[in-house]
Amino acid sequence: MRETVRLAVQYQVAIGAHPGFPDLSGFGRRSMQLSPREIEDLVVYQIGALAGIAAAQGARLSHVKAHGALYNMASRDPALAGAIARATAAVDSSLVLVGLSGSALIDAGRQAGLRTASEAFADRGYAGDGSLLPRGSPGALLADSEQVAKRAVGMVRRGVIAADDGREIEVRAETICIHGDGPQAAGLARAIRAALEDAGITLSSMAA
Amino acid sequence: MRETVRLAVQYQVAIGAHPGFPDLSGFGRRSMQLSPREIEDLVVYQIGALAGIAAAQGARLSHVKAHGALYNMASRDPALAGAIARATAAVDSSLVLVGLSGSALIDAGRQAGLRTASEAFADRGYAGDGSLLPRGSPGALLADSEQVAKRAVGMVRRGVIAADDGREIEVRAETICIHGDGPQAAGLARAIRAALEDAGITLSSMAA
Amino acid sequence: MRETVRLAVQYQVAIGAHPGFPDLSGFGRRSMQLSPREIEDLVVYQIGALAGIAAAQGARLSHVKAHGALYNMASRDPALAGAIARATAAVDSSLVLVGLSGSALIDAGRQAGLRTASEAFADRGYAGDGSLLPRGSPGALLADSEQVAKRAVGMVRRGVIAADDGREIEVRAETICIHGDGPQAAGLARAIRAALEDAGITLSSMAA
Amino acid sequence: MRETVRLAVQYQVAIGAHPGFPDLSGFGRRSMQLSPREIEDLVVYQIGALAGIAAAQGARLSHVKAHGALYNMASRDPALAGAIARATAAVDSSLVLVGLSGSALIDAGRQAGLRTASEAFADRGYAGDGSLLPRGSPGALLADSEQVAKRAVGMVRRGVIAADDGREIEVRAETICIHGDGPQAAGLARAIRAALEDAGITLSSMAA
Repeated sequence: MRETVRLAVQYQVAIGAHPGFPDLSGFGRRSMQLSPREIEDLVVYQIGALAGIAAAQGARLSHVKAHGALYNMASRDPALAGAIARATAAVDSSLVLVGLSGSALIDAGRQAGLRTASEAFADRGYAGDGSLLPRGSPGALLADSEQVAKRAVGMVRRGVIAADDGREIEVRAETICIHGDGPQAAGLARAIRAALEDAGITLSSMAA
Repeated sequence: MRETVRLAVQYQVAIGAHPGFPDLSGFGRRSMQLSPREIEDLVVYQIGALAGIAAAQGARLSHVKAHGALYNMASRDPALAGAIARATAAVDSSLVLVGLSGSALIDAGRQAGLRTASEAFADRGYAGDGSLLPRGSPGALLADSEQVAKRAVGMVRRGVIAADDGREIEVRAETICIHGDGPQAAGLARAIRAALEDAGITLSSMAA
Repeated sequence: MRETVRLAVQYQVAIGAHPGFPDLSGFGRRSMQLSPREIEDLVVYQIGALAGIAAAQGARLSHVKAHGALYNMASRDPALAGAIARATAAVDSSLVLVGLSGSALIDAGRQAGLRTASEAFADRGYAGDGSLLPRGSPGALLADSEQVAKRAVGMVRRGVIAADDGREIEVRAETICIHGDGPQAAGLARAIRAALEDAGITLSSMAA
Repeated sequence: MRETVRLAVQYQVAIGAHPGFPDLSGFGRRSMQLSPREIEDLVVYQIGALAGIAAAQGARLSHVKAHGALYNMASRDPALAGAIARATAAVDSSLVLVGLSGSALIDAGRQAGLRTASEAFADRGYAGDGSLLPRGSPGALLADSEQVAKRAVGMVRRGVIAADDGREIEVRAETICIHGDGPQAAGLARAIRAALEDAGITLSSMAA
């Protein structure tokens, strides 16, 4: 973690906390039924720990984005979304709250007085209702860099993305997620950046 | 934890981090051989987490004191003491580092540019070499409030404490530790405060 | 754990495994969405660990009862119930599977070829649909030993228990649960045993 | 774990428990000061859990070998070695206890009435006193399959291995350890097996 933060500082990458459920063996990808108060406490704890690691490297956190099952549940559940937003604002009200475009997280962030960043996923399939296809289902993870880059440009330029049923869904893509846990992650990132710049779009850091 | 911090804020008690080994089942009381770099990382992480919890309650940390086996090992080992001091200073250089009077922790804190607070134990027995008698050995834990209060006054007034072999050991008691995990803790605290005030000694908060 | 098992051996108390979710900070009382295969693996692991502890004291396990949220979820969900029953049978097909009277756990145990024990709760309130009132709701935990003993006799004699809406629910009480985490637990157990014996009912151990 | 055990059954590989310290973030490679009684409890627990997983696949454990720092400490410390041997015998007295050739573990296993298997390391460097060179020091891990195979034959044929100071150390190699966490592990295993068979040595399973 220390080394990751050090590299982020060196390459001027914005650093954000990615708090999730205390489910070590499931990597936070399995739903847990926690009360909003329990959620608030774990989000405060996890932001604080990373803020300490960042401070020790002379850096600051710029944003917070819930992880895995917590992100998915809070996208739909205003009580959980509110807990995450209140926790974020309580630790540091200058943090940007990242949430799925159009989700309860974005609403909750605004209500808590936070700046928000609506997120869209270039490398994940969408269902017709605007939710992400669950990992493990066909078309959930996209690996073709050309396709992913095209989706990214469509999101930003036209504010839409194609769902798996052919419909176009409206999305607000203030930040684009690429999953870092595949071998093609860096390639996708390069392809997306190039395609966005070719389309005349200027990228800026969350920290700015 | 949130509730503890809230009460500390309400009663104006200084809040400090108490980082220890990742030994949940042993409550951090069992030695572990970690490298100084591993120690640095866990101290940063634990201070950060508590600083976040404090910030969410509108409070700030005032000091850091290592816990259990980490405290004991770092009292004698300059490499571990240095790791704790560097980690503390890296997260927040205004924190006070608490360490056993005369120990490597106090030296390391000064070298790291931190304010330090030399600690003495009113409710623990001392060996002739100035170390604490190990928990579990006879005389390690003192419960008699009159005896404990008398020891406290002696530490502060005369800078000495009686060891189990009868010798008087020099101690610098800028802060006095009472263990909170016994039923008599609040009574000991009251007795010590009363005895110190009777002796004309003024107490002030670590946060001041 | 070793000492608990030793006492059970000394007093000839049947020993059972009580597997639950890997949710240490929530004591297994919070729902988690695990796949049936993940459930199978954790139940095998937890039964095995306790069987080892029992073996080291010269004892054997007699039964398995899921804990907390896992018990509640598996009572209603045949896929989870099947996972628990298969895991139990795979480790030791002579184990008795304990489950809520009338629940999916009892069905799954029979399908897996296990002996089952239908359980009723003397110290918990029931809803009209036969489920337990959630902890924290009014009437969820009963502490009056006379009332609890009367309910126990009614379960066994007449096969019914009063729900919170006044209805009588049919229950099969082959084993009666009393929660051990309250100060009145031993008193309730004595009162229940006395009332059952007064009613001419013979108790026998699960291990028999 | 379930899949590993299933493969072991399919390929008739003997299955052994590898109990270690509860140090998840350090993978059990960092020393911890636990009492012999604490060691006994954790060894019982870990053997039991794996025995359950094996039983669920229709298999049995054949041996026990302590892991990482626990193995190294118990090699030299009769109290820890005794705790491991007693725990193993208490769970299942037919288990073989694996320990470093000439170490306290082999003595303790015999005293506990267990069959023992003296172990030598083909892919680790030895110090002149017969201990393993610590991981991280030069020559601690050997990757050249020809060298490793030659060392294996020397151990078994002549009962010796070359230490890093040039001396020959006596070893009894009833079982040979190869570390499975490097990319060359399978290649080393094949080279050692071929070299031993070329030297006219017959291999047999620990389970036999």
